[in-house]
Amino acid sequence: MTETLRKSRAGGLAGQTGQRIIIIGSGFGGLEVAKALGRRGLAATIVDRRNHHLFQPLLYQVATAALSPADVAEPVRRILRRYDSVQVLLGEVADIDRTASRVIFSDGFELTYDILVLAPGAVTGYFGHDEWAPVARGLKSIGDARQLRSAVLLAFEKAERALDPDEQQRLMTFAVVGGGPTGVELAGSLAELSRFALRNDYRNVRPESARIMIIEAGPRLLSQFSNKLSDFAETRLRELGVEIRTNTPVEDMGPGWIRIAGETLGAGVILWAAGVRASPLASRLGVETDRAGRIPVDPLLRVQSGENIFALGDAASCAGADGRPLPGLAQVAKQQGQHLGSGLAALLRDGTPLSAFQYHGRGNTAIIGRHAAVFEQGRLRLTGWIAWLAWAIIHVYLLVGFQHRILVSIQWLWRYLTYERGARLLTEVEEKSMRSRQRPQ
Amino acid sequence: MTETLRKSRAGGLAGQTGQRIIIIGSGFGGLEVAKALGRRGLAATIVDRRNHHLFQPLLYQVATAALSPADVAEPVRRILRRYDSVQVLLGEVADIDRTASRVIFSDGFELTYDILVLAPGAVTGYFGHDEWAPVARGLKSIGDARQLRSAVLLAFEKAERALDPDEQQRLMTFAVVGGGPTGVELAGSLAELSRFALRNDYRNVRPESARIMIIEAGPRLLSQFSNKLSDFAETRLRELGVEIRTNTPVEDMGPGWIRIAGETLGAGVILWAAGVRASPLASRLGVETDRAGRIPVDPLLRVQSGENIFALGDAASCAGADGRPLPGLAQVAKQQGQHLGSGLAALLRDGTPLSAFQYHGRGNTAIIGRHAAVFEQGRLRLTGWIAWLAWAIIHVYLLVGFQHRILVSIQWLWRYLTYERGARLLTEVEEKSMRSRQRPQ
Repeated sequence: MTETLRKSRAGGLAGQTGQRIIIIGSGFGGLEVAKALGRRGLAATIVDRRNHHLFQPLLYQVATAALSPADVAEPVRRILRRYDSVQVLLGEVADIDRTASRVIFSDGFELTYDILVLAPGAVTGYFGHDEWAPVARGLKSIGDARQLRSAVLLAFEKAERALDPDEQQRLMTFAVVGGGPTGVELAGSLAELSRFALRNDYRNVRPESARIMIIEAGPRLLSQFSNKLSDFAETRLRELGVEIRTNTPVEDMGPGWIRIAGETLGAGVILWAAGVRASPLASRLGVETDRAGRIPVDPLLRVQSGENIFALGDAASCAGADGRPLPGLAQVAKQQGQHLGSGLAALLRDGTPLSAFQYHGRGNTAIIGRHAAVFEQGRLRLTGWIAWLAWAIIHVYLLVGFQHRILVSIQWLWRYLTYERGARLLTEVEEKSMRSRQRPQ
Repeated sequence: MTETLRKSRAGGLAGQTGQRIIIIGSGFGGLEVAKALGRRGLAATIVDRRNHHLFQPLLYQVATAALSPADVAEPVRRILRRYDSVQVLLGEVADIDRTASRVIFSDGFELTYDILVLAPGAVTGYFGHDEWAPVARGLKSIGDARQLRSAVLLAFEKAERALDPDEQQRLMTFAVVGGGPTGVELAGSLAELSRFALRNDYRNVRPESARIMIIEAGPRLLSQFSNKLSDFAETRLRELGVEIRTNTPVEDMGPGWIRIAGETLGAGVILWAAGVRASPLASRLGVETDRAGRIPVDPLLRVQSGENIFALGDAASCAGADGRPLPGLAQVAKQQGQHLGSGLAALLRDGTPLSAFQYHGRGNTAIIGRHAAVFEQGRLRLTGWIAWLAWAIIHVYLLVGFQHRILVSIQWLWRYLTYERGARLLTEVEEKSMRSRQRPQ
């Protein structure tokens, strides 16, 4: 045992196999690796800078005041509680020292590994326009969701107090950048928030007159779905009063304004759903990453042939059956985690060689609003009511923890019946931080 | 109509009676005034720096990861939605100009009043030791509760990673200052969190060995209850492993330590439940306030005889039947608000003179833990199971909004059955802010 390990007191680390496995990231991928190892009594340490596993597919509902942060987050410790051989550590990994096989934390703490699994996920990406980050917040963490929720609610509050009708209209303009599932879900949910939940709550402004735009550089929304489903989504969003600007790249933006197609528009809140890139940690390996910052991996999910470092999920670029990189989906990360976890367990137990990962698409889904969603798997394409029901059932089922399933179901049922939103929370701290950021020019 | 009012566009303000009523604060008191006026179609404007009414009696459950912030907060707009004559404004009142009858907001916005109702509530008070504020956070807002929750969860996370057993024990020491209901509730809830919810989640430390202290300067806990109930609370807290230090004033404290009875103790988190004082706004009136910063009011709740300014709730000092100031309880504020609201409505409608306020105590209750609470009304004194049930029913009943009642009930039932806590949420932002504050010396 090295000094570092004794120092860490993560006593059980090496376990029966003598192999120290460290997993970085407790998203859909990392968690499955830890579970697969824990289930077989193999020692592993999982590290994350957050104490919770985040159910990202429902994060937009936190940003639009429909759910509370705790509804979409589950403590990693609780999920892995039953696996005595698995150690959970809270900490931010700053660097990886491949020469010494060490993981270095931002506070100087260190851990030595024999096998390293990198699953740090993705962060919001601005395609070289990092100056837009303070203006248009992305949606990757609870902090992001809370901040967006505050910005949206505060825009209506400011409009209520604004003196000038033009200023009121500017404040109540919400520009969603990006027409993928997150952008569509945010725009649809903002439309329902303003059209229904808030409609009778103000005296000087009419929230239902809020302008909600979805701005997409490509030719259509939901480009990963078939044309038919894109058309359906556009029709339904238009019915909700959402303006759709396709073939419209963002030219520039600043606090309170955005420029598209040569025109500068005022906006109360700009929401960024246009792109993500791999966690910056992916670049600390010294391996050449792809355009999105992802680490290329071979079919065994190894970072380089023969090495003891693996990568998966949003931070890895893994070729699918068609040779193209697999998309950044929860189900990809989850399947990779299950595959690698049980593969490593078999390797350590009796030397069974690792096998190649194969992705089995379970279908894609996105929700637009009440009774309106799309679902696609191979040739099966569903829209409307049935896709909406499928969406809700899938998402409740995928939530970790029985309590979350119950609480989310009840809140959805309540929202369905009353059109209300339960989590319209704006605290004075958030208000202050927004005031400095979102002040009109 | 003055310029200010036209500017505000709060058009309906003056309403049929021609009287502009401004209510500052949407706590238990202010809200009742607004409702009473709104119910009779009278115009009023209610101002708060938060967008939500906070159910403070359950805030300690947010601080101990049992409930989510949105479970104990309801948007003021939604509560008052049905009263068309009532205007809700978000904003921080910085000053009151009695000469010009104007309320001045921190961002320069102004409103003119004919009648002003001050119900700004209380803030944490440190009895002249404001230097303790950054070390020992009080519990008066959602922000406070989130910060305390983070501090508590982070203390366990740090202990899990700490190298030194003494440091682990220091991190897992929670000092609750103040033995009133909030202190007792916090200590009891922390004990249950560490003894039950967290007990199997760590590998290097045993959360159930956490040291929880309750430090009270006076001779007994729950001094506003009878001796018998104080004794009961102390016994039950001791059974939960809580150390009780009565007759023990705090001598000094700093980040990570507290000095009592000449001894300096290490502490992972210090929680302040020792006192509150009236909102600083109470001092802006130019009226002499009492020791706790409260505005003295006459039996009509007027700030000074003959004036058009009223004060109620935690920011007012109003004599009870025994001549002593009424305590800072939700039910006092609520009854005062109902009384003043309907009184003002009758006054404005047909000149009915205001009548003197009389408080009707509905009983006091405090909860210690599972199956253990105290309830007292006059000679009726309940402890244990029955008081615990009464406590739960009263609190669910008093929650504003059907959705909150359902969600809180389910979470309590779930917690009762499983001992789990649903809201163990620690985000990286909170972690960072805590890291700088709580770093051991």
